[in-house]
Amino acid sequence: MRLSQMFGKTSKEKPADAELASHILMMRAGMIYQASAGVYAYLPLAWRSLKKIETIIREEMDAINGQEIRMPVVQPQDIWEQSGRYDQMGSLLFRLQDRRDRQLILAPTHEELLTNIVKATVTSYKDLPLVIYQIQTKFRDEARPRGGLIRVREFDMKDAYSFDIDEAGLDQNYKAMIHAYENIYRRCGLNVVMVEADSGAIGGSESHEFILLADSGEDTILVCQGGHYTANAEKATFTKPIPPIFAQENLEEIHTPDAKTIKEITETLGVSASSTIKTVFYMADNELIIVVIRGDLEINEVKLSNALGGVNELRLASREELLAAGQVVGFASPIGSGTTRVISDDSILMGNNFIVGANKPDYHYKNANYERDFESDIIADIASAEGGHPCVVCGQGLIAKKGIEVGHVFKLGTKYSHSFNATFADSNDQPQPMIMGCYGIGIGRLLSSAIEQNHDERGMILPTPIAPYHVSLIALNIERDEISESANCLYQDLIEAGIEVLFDDRQESPGIKFNDADLVGLPIRIVVSPRNVSNNVVELKTRMETDSSMVERGNIVREILNRLDQ
Amino acid sequence: MRLSQMFGKTSKEKPADAELASHILMMRAGMIYQASAGVYAYLPLAWRSLKKIETIIREEMDAINGQEIRMPVVQPQDIWEQSGRYDQMGSLLFRLQDRRDRQLILAPTHEELLTNIVKATVTSYKDLPLVIYQIQTKFRDEARPRGGLIRVREFDMKDAYSFDIDEAGLDQNYKAMIHAYENIYRRCGLNVVMVEADSGAIGGSESHEFILLADSGEDTILVCQGGHYTANAEKATFTKPIPPIFAQENLEEIHTPDAKTIKEITETLGVSASSTIKTVFYMADNELIIVVIRGDLEINEVKLSNALGGVNELRLASREELLAAGQVVGFASPIGSGTTRVISDDSILMGNNFIVGANKPDYHYKNANYERDFESDIIADIASAEGGHPCVVCGQGLIAKKGIEVGHVFKLGTKYSHSFNATFADSNDQPQPMIMGCYGIGIGRLLSSAIEQNHDERGMILPTPIAPYHVSLIALNIERDEISESANCLYQDLIEAGIEVLFDDRQESPGIKFNDADLVGLPIRIVVSPRNVSNNVVELKTRMETDSSMVERGNIVREILNRLDQ
Repeated sequence: MRLSQMFGKTSKEKPADAELASHILMMRAGMIYQASAGVYAYLPLAWRSLKKIETIIREEMDAINGQEIRMPVVQPQDIWEQSGRYDQMGSLLFRLQDRRDRQLILAPTHEELLTNIVKATVTSYKDLPLVIYQIQTKFRDEARPRGGLIRVREFDMKDAYSFDIDEAGLDQNYKAMIHAYENIYRRCGLNVVMVEADSGAIGGSESHEFILLADSGEDTILVCQGGHYTANAEKATFTKPIPPIFAQENLEEIHTPDAKTIKEITETLGVSASSTIKTVFYMADNELIIVVIRGDLEINEVKLSNALGGVNELRLASREELLAAGQVVGFASPIGSGTTRVISDDSILMGNNFIVGANKPDYHYKNANYERDFESDIIADIASAEGGHPCVVCGQGLIAKKGIEVGHVFKLGTKYSHSFNATFADSNDQPQPMIMGCYGIGIGRLLSSAIEQNHDERGMILPTPIAPYHVSLIALNIERDEISESANCLYQDLIEAGIEVLFDDRQESPGIKFNDADLVGLPIRIVVSPRNVSNNVVELKTRMETDSSMVERGNIVREILNRLDQ
Repeated sequence: MRLSQMFGKTSKEKPADAELASHILMMRAGMIYQASAGVYAYLPLAWRSLKKIETIIREEMDAINGQEIRMPVVQPQDIWEQSGRYDQMGSLLFRLQDRRDRQLILAPTHEELLTNIVKATVTSYKDLPLVIYQIQTKFRDEARPRGGLIRVREFDMKDAYSFDIDEAGLDQNYKAMIHAYENIYRRCGLNVVMVEADSGAIGGSESHEFILLADSGEDTILVCQGGHYTANAEKATFTKPIPPIFAQENLEEIHTPDAKTIKEITETLGVSASSTIKTVFYMADNELIIVVIRGDLEINEVKLSNALGGVNELRLASREELLAAGQVVGFASPIGSGTTRVISDDSILMGNNFIVGANKPDYHYKNANYERDFESDIIADIASAEGGHPCVVCGQGLIAKKGIEVGHVFKLGTKYSHSFNATFADSNDQPQPMIMGCYGIGIGRLLSSAIEQNHDERGMILPTPIAPYHVSLIALNIERDEISESANCLYQDLIEAGIEVLFDDRQESPGIKFNDADLVGLPIRIVVSPRNVSNNVVELKTRMETDSSMVERGNIVREILNRLDQ
């Protein structure tokens, strides 16, 4: 492609509203155009990379016997009501009416529709297993679209679904899909780790996320130093430290006028945080609840929601809500909680003679012990894992890393086959619900995450398999006939060798050309200049190298092919 | 692909609501699933064909320097208001609001958005020309979706747009695009003719349609027997026959109680239809108008709308509207039309001494002559061309044919660049509006039209380049080990030779297998049976042949490759 003819222009200006490197660089390189909040057009450079990602994904899906289909964007609202997700997804769903006032939605994902299609197609156990996928545009009316292509309202996604006759079949497809995902990220040249994840609103029993490591990511994962365990922070477990256990002493009220927080208590009383109990009030779907955890740990709201059996809205109770419920602010306690439900982290079983609020202004209890002094309606692991916590497998410290979710796989089980009564006849001709899995990769997010992971202050450094072209060919002083001829001849030679070239044939200064080449950041940059032409050499440099080398004109094609192979 | 594992099942039943062959056959072959009215999912067989069509289109777009991009579906309403199409498209536009009550539409096409993107990217004449395309999902809330994929509400389309500095550049891109379209249809193996077309609501100066010939089509085209002229019936012109001209005689009222229609007049009075004038009342955007044409011709409403300068709603006036306006029903006349506007076909200039209504119950005039007896506010060609009319070029009779529109190209000129003030600086640094063209092909409609053109009572006969697979491999008595081994071995050989095979490995009767193979209608069918295996031959038949032949097992791969090459 000749740069002079390419649609899309580079810019030196940082876009006003952009903060993430991928957003800034893609805008500056003329790769994307914002049509409205969180809605982008992909210009040729971005679209080339996205199609390369799509091709890799397609090949890996086909390799595990995935069958590609295409489902529609516009869907009837009723199947979303039937699955319960019409309400569950709330304002994330785009809703509309057609000219006959039929209620429709723009699909954010396709479990509902595909389950119906499979139900209409599959009758017998002989028709299963099936792995079905599509690469298609999805819609989510995000409250805060951000970061360029990282969180958008319209996005292309590969979504795959498996249908099996039993859990063993699901296990097999789930593992095959994980293997395909690992191949996809590896072939894209990206550093991605798989972590245990929470299933969230989509439902199901088991789930893993694929996290692309990048400091700018807003997901936190915890990785065992010994390589024994990796999990999303929302889901991660750890071995909770067990403090020394003493003989139970008598419950005693103590005057603590200046100690409301755990920090103030440990400082005032000279005790460790693990000798204290933290009590927090939450509103869980309009029910005020008391949440209790040992003072050295933090509450994980995803785990808390799961412990409650799934909650649509979970948030800290406000001061007003506490006062209205007759609760004491700052000295809350599971002791004397009355009819309010208490949910406790299992860390309160580890340790005893705790300091805990006295449900009375300016007072705490000491020597509080579970069962003797207070009880709990639910006891579960609701603690957040953090860097430094011991690995559940080996006890070595976990390390917290930042990343971006670039893939998610779920064992759905029978959630949707039950909603739509999607059954098959087993070998005894008895109807059985299909066992489902679902598997997603956001294509645009994968590209922008790849840039987050691979860039420097000058521009992008996309891995070769997903870079829009392989080579930047820069011709300096192209207004001279001998340069133009030489560069055009080289351009043709490279194309004939199957090398994808972006040929900067513009009449621009060397500075502008070098800066634009660094910005787009193709794997290899070659330069044709008056001096090079007279010496019959071409200057070559990879995007990562600081120094260039001179390659004989006769060897340049082979040299580039060698470098691309590496 | 093993048929036993394929997603999608054949059916013998004709779907209740389907009338077109393509709709019936695609449903019966398990290629499509209707998700709601005019909204379909494409299952693997259909999706394979659609991707093949996409690939051919992409290659031909790239060959004329088209640059592929991807624009979003969801667009802000305001750019559609700015172009005037928000109102013009009426209820065809899907409209919605997001969570912040911003007004959005689902794009039916992308002139508005792309003009804005190009405006933001192009500054100088050096940045032009540009040919930009995408293959993407479009939305139109059709009142009567019908015919399977022929008229749907959600559809994939290749839409391309050209931007030039002058009309000469547009001419060049327009011609290149027409050439690319001809290549696309030829490469797909389809019989498509290009016809002059009306520009319609999209605007612009020149337009051609590509019509796939099929008796089930609802478009009519007129083709000169001598090959000199081809046009859509909406647009077609013809040489109007000129009747004998006589000396003007005096206007005379005649009593015609039983003659209201042209047929009744010619029969009652013994005159030819070309000696009469037909007068019809229309409502054009709420204005009652009188439309006049010679009695041997019919009114073409598209031409009439254009003669009026473009009308949003044009329809025959109702009896009630005529009576309310004090008009006489059945004896209407341009003579004494008062303040009502008269629009006449230029055929009234050809001939004289016409019979025309007298604007008075049971009376006509004879010897009515234009200018002497009546006038017209507009005179234009508003007559429908029909089979038998003389070609404007050579005078030979036109032939009417039925077909389906499978492509449309428009010279838009400056319609959208004016709406959005999309200019470039010319070589004198003066701003000039970009000159645009737009070019569309509906992918799903092309597939279903291809089936309309290529099928028989047993099933589809898709041309090889767009058939989902090349070969149906049928194994009879596959429960026998030697058959299963032989068929599996042949299946592997064919795959290794790059032949796309659909292997019917099901334990079904020969009748079911042969019927299903005919239904899907792949170009070549081969059969492995006990007798064939023992004779070391394979039975081969193309879908079009009635008789099969036996090919030695050792030669079958080469023979199939030869047949596919033909």
